[in-house]
Amino acid sequence: MAPVVIGIAGGTGSGKSTLVRRIVEHLPGRVAVLPQDAYYLDRRDLPFEERARLNYDHPLAFDTPLLIRHLQALKQGKPVRRPVYDFTQHLRDRRTVWVEPRDVIVVEGILVLAEEALRPLLDIKIFVDTDADVRILRRLVRDIEKRGRTLESVISQYLETVKPMHEQFVEPSKRYADLIIPEGGFNRVAVDVLLARIRAALQNEATLRPATSPTSAADPGAAAGSPGAVNGASASPSGGGTGAPSDGGTGGRRQRRRQRRKNRKVRPAVNQAAAEP
Amino acid sequence: MAPVVIGIAGGTGSGKSTLVRRIVEHLPGRVAVLPQDAYYLDRRDLPFEERARLNYDHPLAFDTPLLIRHLQALKQGKPVRRPVYDFTQHLRDRRTVWVEPRDVIVVEGILVLAEEALRPLLDIKIFVDTDADVRILRRLVRDIEKRGRTLESVISQYLETVKPMHEQFVEPSKRYADLIIPEGGFNRVAVDVLLARIRAALQNEATLRPATSPTSAADPGAAAGSPGAVNGASASPSGGGTGAPSDGGTGGRRQRRRQRRKNRKVRPAVNQAAAEP
Repeated sequence: MAPVVIGIAGGTGSGKSTLVRRIVEHLPGRVAVLPQDAYYLDRRDLPFEERARLNYDHPLAFDTPLLIRHLQALKQGKPVRRPVYDFTQHLRDRRTVWVEPRDVIVVEGILVLAEEALRPLLDIKIFVDTDADVRILRRLVRDIEKRGRTLESVISQYLETVKPMHEQFVEPSKRYADLIIPEGGFNRVAVDVLLARIRAALQNEATLRPATSPTSAADPGAAAGSPGAVNGASASPSGGGTGAPSDGGTGGRRQRRRQRRKNRKVRPAVNQAAAEP
Repeated sequence: MAPVVIGIAGGTGSGKSTLVRRIVEHLPGRVAVLPQDAYYLDRRDLPFEERARLNYDHPLAFDTPLLIRHLQALKQGKPVRRPVYDFTQHLRDRRTVWVEPRDVIVVEGILVLAEEALRPLLDIKIFVDTDADVRILRRLVRDIEKRGRTLESVISQYLETVKPMHEQFVEPSKRYADLIIPEGGFNRVAVDVLLARIRAALQNEATLRPATSPTSAADPGAAAGSPGAVNGASASPSGGGTGAPSDGGTGGRRQRRRQRRKNRKVRPAVNQAAAEP
């Protein structure tokens, strides 16, 4: 049976990563995670100063074809070596993270639903929706406490690129969501609802094929994207190489049919005689 | 065990009723439905012409204390005789609908999440979100085809009360939702997600108490709110009368504590070193 593929989009500080963490925690060894921000293009053709000034909130900052190839490989049961991005150097790292195929694949990132080529590969499309003021406060605390940034630098980056790109690309992608989760992983009720759906899918699986082997369940860190799971490129297991090409190219995009929103039909509800006057 | 109480709000034509129908169809005999628009106040103190001009999209048009008493009774395992509203006469009907307590209770209506006293009684708060243009088109088709209204009358009611009340009360209540479902019952992915959560709750139930008896499962019409389930008031089964008072009063509202949005805390995500740059 095909794995369940869940796309989780939403603005910075919305609660996406927390939602992913909740899913991974509750389904240990069953979830593979592809974080979109591991797939930034490798712009080593530019000097550091220019790389630092790039707009990292624009869809063209990402190596989406590579993300799509990796997702397709995982869906076909092949492991991948996903890239690691070095945010201090603004470069793709030489190391990779080995990601095993699992019953649940989560693709998470600000622009996951904004990518037309990615959307048809997602079974459940989630947008995490949180007020902009709460989001910037979370980002502020995180960037100052965990990344040693100054208040000024966080504010200027936010106003110069994060906010305009959010309004241009992230927010409009909400309309492709199957489900909108206010507050993301901080929303316990919604987390329970989503977990129930995933567990139902896994129970159907269980009757059809055995659970994942202990060895493939041995890298929860990789699923959670923790640095402990990062392998040196040469130390990565061989095999499954077709699933892990690490070219940084952007070419090869195919003509795509526009995904139609079939459920937006205008049809009157049946048996609604007792509805609003 | 307590039943699962699901509140479903959203604008006219959003897909609320369709969502309720999907739930009832997939869980036959397990769901009790309280439609908010059965609980319009009985304004027989006014002549017909004045009743026809009332604003039926304002929170004060509803007998919310009665709806709350009925919901509380069902939660305690007591049946209720819910009112029936006659939309042609703009009066509460003499008939009632007998509603048995079930494992799942759905409260559905445009202002379900706008009622502060109702919200704490709901385990899962859902807002069905659909574009306003799609919603008015659905309402237009429904009112013209099923209710014999004219294009002009639908448009004038929509612009005079439905739209302003939506913007003042319905839309702002979205922020209380645990889950926002675009297109409601037309959104198959979201319906599956919600059903999985309800089924998980029912499976936990099953180990604790027997399934509902065949007799109590014999009124699917009542759950779906179809006219076939409407009983004459004198023919309604006696007993459980405490659950079905039919006074039309609006008094007795208690001082309520404002429900705090605990999950809106500003806390930085943990282990997010590899998140946005």
